[in-house]
Amino acid sequence: MKKIVLIIFILFTLKIEHTLHADDGYRLWLKYDEISNPLRLQTYKKLIKGWMIFGESSTMAVVKKELYTGLEGLLGSAVPEVDSINDGIVIVGIYQSSPLLEKLNLSNRLINISQGSYIILNTRLDNKQVIIITANEATGLLYGVFHFLRLLQTYQDIENVNIESSPKIQRRILNHWDNLDRTAERGYAGFSLWEWHKLPDYIHKYYYDYARANASIGINGTVLNSVNANPLILSPLYLEKVAALADVFRPYGIRVYLSVKFSSPIDIGGLPTADPLDSQVRQWWKTKVEEIYTHIPDFGGFLIKANSEGQPGPQKYGRSHAEGANMLADALKPFKGIVMWRAFVYDDTIKEDRAKQAYNEFKPLDGKFRDNVLVQVKNGPIDFQPREPFHPLFGAMPKTPLMVEFQITQEYLGFSTHLVYLGTLFKECLDSDTYARGEGSTVAKIVDGSLDQHSLSGIAGVANTGTDRNWTGHLFGQANWYAFGRIAWNHELTAAEIAEEWIRMTLSRDPNVIQTIKDMMMFSRENTVNYMTPLGLHHIMGWDHHYGPAPWIKDKHRDDWTSVYYHKADSNGIGFDRTATGSNAVNQYYPPVAQKFTQLNSCPDEYLLWFHHLDWDYRMRSEKTLWEELYYHYYSGVEAVREMQCSWNSIQDNLDEEIFQHVQTMLKIQEKESVWWRDACILYFQTFSGEPIPTELEKPQKSLEFYQNLSFPFAPK
Amino acid sequence: MKKIVLIIFILFTLKIEHTLHADDGYRLWLKYDEISNPLRLQTYKKLIKGWMIFGESSTMAVVKKELYTGLEGLLGSAVPEVDSINDGIVIVGIYQSSPLLEKLNLSNRLINISQGSYIILNTRLDNKQVIIITANEATGLLYGVFHFLRLLQTYQDIENVNIESSPKIQRRILNHWDNLDRTAERGYAGFSLWEWHKLPDYIHKYYYDYARANASIGINGTVLNSVNANPLILSPLYLEKVAALADVFRPYGIRVYLSVKFSSPIDIGGLPTADPLDSQVRQWWKTKVEEIYTHIPDFGGFLIKANSEGQPGPQKYGRSHAEGANMLADALKPFKGIVMWRAFVYDDTIKEDRAKQAYNEFKPLDGKFRDNVLVQVKNGPIDFQPREPFHPLFGAMPKTPLMVEFQITQEYLGFSTHLVYLGTLFKECLDSDTYARGEGSTVAKIVDGSLDQHSLSGIAGVANTGTDRNWTGHLFGQANWYAFGRIAWNHELTAAEIAEEWIRMTLSRDPNVIQTIKDMMMFSRENTVNYMTPLGLHHIMGWDHHYGPAPWIKDKHRDDWTSVYYHKADSNGIGFDRTATGSNAVNQYYPPVAQKFTQLNSCPDEYLLWFHHLDWDYRMRSEKTLWEELYYHYYSGVEAVREMQCSWNSIQDNLDEEIFQHVQTMLKIQEKESVWWRDACILYFQTFSGEPIPTELEKPQKSLEFYQNLSFPFAPK
Repeated sequence: MKKIVLIIFILFTLKIEHTLHADDGYRLWLKYDEISNPLRLQTYKKLIKGWMIFGESSTMAVVKKELYTGLEGLLGSAVPEVDSINDGIVIVGIYQSSPLLEKLNLSNRLINISQGSYIILNTRLDNKQVIIITANEATGLLYGVFHFLRLLQTYQDIENVNIESSPKIQRRILNHWDNLDRTAERGYAGFSLWEWHKLPDYIHKYYYDYARANASIGINGTVLNSVNANPLILSPLYLEKVAALADVFRPYGIRVYLSVKFSSPIDIGGLPTADPLDSQVRQWWKTKVEEIYTHIPDFGGFLIKANSEGQPGPQKYGRSHAEGANMLADALKPFKGIVMWRAFVYDDTIKEDRAKQAYNEFKPLDGKFRDNVLVQVKNGPIDFQPREPFHPLFGAMPKTPLMVEFQITQEYLGFSTHLVYLGTLFKECLDSDTYARGEGSTVAKIVDGSLDQHSLSGIAGVANTGTDRNWTGHLFGQANWYAFGRIAWNHELTAAEIAEEWIRMTLSRDPNVIQTIKDMMMFSRENTVNYMTPLGLHHIMGWDHHYGPAPWIKDKHRDDWTSVYYHKADSNGIGFDRTATGSNAVNQYYPPVAQKFTQLNSCPDEYLLWFHHLDWDYRMRSEKTLWEELYYHYYSGVEAVREMQCSWNSIQDNLDEEIFQHVQTMLKIQEKESVWWRDACILYFQTFSGEPIPTELEKPQKSLEFYQNLSFPFAPK
Repeated sequence: MKKIVLIIFILFTLKIEHTLHADDGYRLWLKYDEISNPLRLQTYKKLIKGWMIFGESSTMAVVKKELYTGLEGLLGSAVPEVDSINDGIVIVGIYQSSPLLEKLNLSNRLINISQGSYIILNTRLDNKQVIIITANEATGLLYGVFHFLRLLQTYQDIENVNIESSPKIQRRILNHWDNLDRTAERGYAGFSLWEWHKLPDYIHKYYYDYARANASIGINGTVLNSVNANPLILSPLYLEKVAALADVFRPYGIRVYLSVKFSSPIDIGGLPTADPLDSQVRQWWKTKVEEIYTHIPDFGGFLIKANSEGQPGPQKYGRSHAEGANMLADALKPFKGIVMWRAFVYDDTIKEDRAKQAYNEFKPLDGKFRDNVLVQVKNGPIDFQPREPFHPLFGAMPKTPLMVEFQITQEYLGFSTHLVYLGTLFKECLDSDTYARGEGSTVAKIVDGSLDQHSLSGIAGVANTGTDRNWTGHLFGQANWYAFGRIAWNHELTAAEIAEEWIRMTLSRDPNVIQTIKDMMMFSRENTVNYMTPLGLHHIMGWDHHYGPAPWIKDKHRDDWTSVYYHKADSNGIGFDRTATGSNAVNQYYPPVAQKFTQLNSCPDEYLLWFHHLDWDYRMRSEKTLWEELYYHYYSGVEAVREMQCSWNSIQDNLDEEIFQHVQTMLKIQEKESVWWRDACILYFQTFSGEPIPTELEKPQKSLEFYQNLSFPFAPK
């Protein structure tokens, strides 16, 4: 009889899963569906029979709920809370406040570890075999519980678990480029999550889920509004709304930060100036900051884009970036708030290579910033291109803590319709060696503060989240959010490890399926570079909206917003000479790096046209001419998208139907658009090279004129 | 043993429901959760053992899927498709094409019935007891199947079912006021559903669910874009996108219509004029319409707002609305397309009561429109106010088919945060007697064409749908979408009947719960009138965004966009004299109506200040003075919202938790805002009346100045 019950039970379970779970992607990687491998399930059930949690606080309530929900889902039935220790009990508590845990003598492992750190340990305690999750504070326990649940989700061994995990970077922050009207700049997943009009009264359920998702990957800060900030965000009306969101996020260990407009004292303060050395202005900021902290006692601080792309800044008053930043820093200091001052500055009235300008402006300011200022530097010197060399400011300002700013939203990487895994892009930058203090001076070590012994460190990712039900528009956009968080926590993880974690949690635990998807992901960004901007090309996308190819953009009101400024194609060749014979941008790097990029025999193909203007018949390492290598990359890019399509189709039976179809459609769009990129770019560059494309290759589908005349009046931007 | 299996089965079912179904509202009223009443379930299972469907087409595929999914969900297990007739079989097929069904001799019931009609019949056929769903076309079957499933959802008897249902109005259309950038005018449920940028390639799943929801309530048309139309909607780029949506909607019996801009021949055609009598212009429209029909063979036609609120129109060229409409009608005629020409016109340069202007302009044109033109008239003469008398054009243009335009989105009724059931509002208008052909000449009979024997008829509802997961922002907004569809199908249904259907399908089948919610809904609109615009007040809301009270609005560039234009409060009294001593708008109604509104002893309190300017101490029927009656209404409005809160809280245990909390929060906002309306309006009108409020009533929470200084910079509009 038991057998029959079991069979019916199983059948019913299968049916329910099938019927109810056309997966719309809302649950992200936090799926706590019952573990489908029976042996695995049996093992886990044996090792997890109950749980105890010590401590009460809003964060502990979240910890408790997550552990309960996670275990119930993964193990298929509720795991009871118990009040005495026994074999197979999971014990969660702050070490210092639990006499029981202190028996484990973990204090030396818990001393001097950074905030958020935790230990997960399968050990004996009072003669029982138990699993311990402990930390110095509740947020550490939250991270620890998420890690523990991830072990189960990804089918890891927990019998001998002994994990000690500490975040390498202190401030792990999402930057939302969201406007108060709920449009999102470079938002491709619907609109802003923040329902400003209904706040503070209506708290949407997804605010909690957003916080939970971030906490699960260790993100501990969020900048709610765009760097092109509306000054109203600091008005009492909006501060009340911001406070309501901060209240939601607080238990999840997430602090709220705001982007501010430098001219706020004028715009909403009624002052005649925003001069950072003006005492009234300084007082206005002090008072405003005090007001903010009455609403939000753990407010994180300000992000600011100043004297950049038309935004106001201190230079209007003859003051430096440092003087501007320090004014804000002084106001925030009593409350332990910080300033994140962006180094994304360039000016088309300065006749200098745009790639050089941030370095030129900021390097002289090294040492002049207050200790609660971080300078936020984009990963590359232009603007989130499919590929850029690392920003030369990394290593150039040893006395200043530098944040790296990555873009998770795919402004230049196919919006939310191209599958492009960014784990590899993030790692490429972080692993780059600046040679600032000799070999091994990686960007990562500069960002995490270890190279120059900074106590403050931070990393920012421009969010790709929006109102789309699956959060990111493209389901694989979730992987980029996930990868950002995981790398922000531990930049030593490989992109492949992170991809595999994400796949296991989100899509499948079947080894073949994992391998197929991981291969797709790991090559996806390189390949997108191939069909968009191979060999170091950059900034050749559509005007303004940045959608699709447009290498022909020229004669605009700003030179440095045109494409021809960057590729400099002519009948002789193509590429931006940034060596000593050109802009000499290469000289901003430390000598070993500068040398590598300067010399053609050591400059990697990936950066060739970034640093060099070369003849069309320049002979590449591959023995191909530059022209041949160029079209070869474009064609192989399209081919690889088609291979991704085949790979995806090959695992259809192993995937949720809704997810399968969603990604399949997206891949069709990516294929179509990769052809568009290829054909438009090749046809355009061919007008300079004058060289043919071999007849055995696909003919371009349309004429160059056709591509040049396309327009996308309401493309998101 | 069977018993144990059953118990486990039941327990498991309950658990799953509990765990998975925190209801986010996405499924609308089409919840096919298993019937929870065991007796009911048993009965249905006995009567429904299998099904047969005759016919194949894209619509039939939808019919089949719906029947299968619905029965599987409601009965808790899949009901098999069978290939031979037997007791308890549901047979679905087009009557004329099924020899089996023809045995039933239903042809006389199916002759001369309107498109979409169907019959549901429990009867004997070949000596078996079967349930028949039959119609003249597949769309009728689709409506029939939805009706049949609704019977089960609402626990109706199907043993003796014998239903014949025909839509009374031919074109049942949603109007989306959606822009191409995905903002939605007067959209309070997020943003536009149409992802223009990703169309035609990416077909979002919710497009299907949108179509399905509409089909389930008989809606058969959708205008995709705002009446303030962007001319680009007619460009080849967008027509391809429109066609993709039309392809999704077609199987669900839904036609696509477009709003067009009258100046399109200039804007995108490059012509120097849009004069409707210009042969080039006429040719441009003909060619454009031909192009549209190559993309969308069943395209419905155009909706147009011309010479209204700044939109271009024929009057610029000295032509009439009829000449404008007829040009478009001539272009559409060969394809059976129609024109819906809006009568929403008023001009502040004409010194005439705004309420009179549409009548003045359109009545003289009666008989001058082509037979494929419908004139679309808002329910009242101003603009979707909480309460208006019916529009005097109804009955005034017997030779012209008139559509009624309702607003489902709550522009003037609390956006998406107030619970206001609009079934009663729709019915109030449709049941109004115009006396056009003597007593009984209701608006409904004019709209459905029966009074004046029009073969073309239509009804429009400005949609309240958006990207919010629950479609309408406020869960009870769904009821208004539902009610619009059901009334469009059959305006003889009562608002209460429709409310009960919706509650049963969406929230609960518990009689006490149904009664509680129905009471809330049925009084909700009257009550919102009480705290917003009692006694015939109108148009006293916030400037531009229309959020909250602002009876003080004056001195704007258009008089007819101010509040004081409408309430005319002064130290003597309040109200708009529209009798013969005033604007004489009352004279636009047929004599019995005009007389009723003119005479104070017959003018209903609801319309009192709409038609009369009365002294503050005017003695009301209630024996109260006008001032007393006014504040009494405002106070009782707030009280009733508080009662709604109590009612809702009293049924918490019977409701889904997520839904309960969502509505509870919304009711808190409604309470807060009803107080705001009450206090702001009373304090403001008190400056004229000079009369006190009894001390036993709540004091206003803030000063008048406070309310006047509130601003809502990014309120949706």
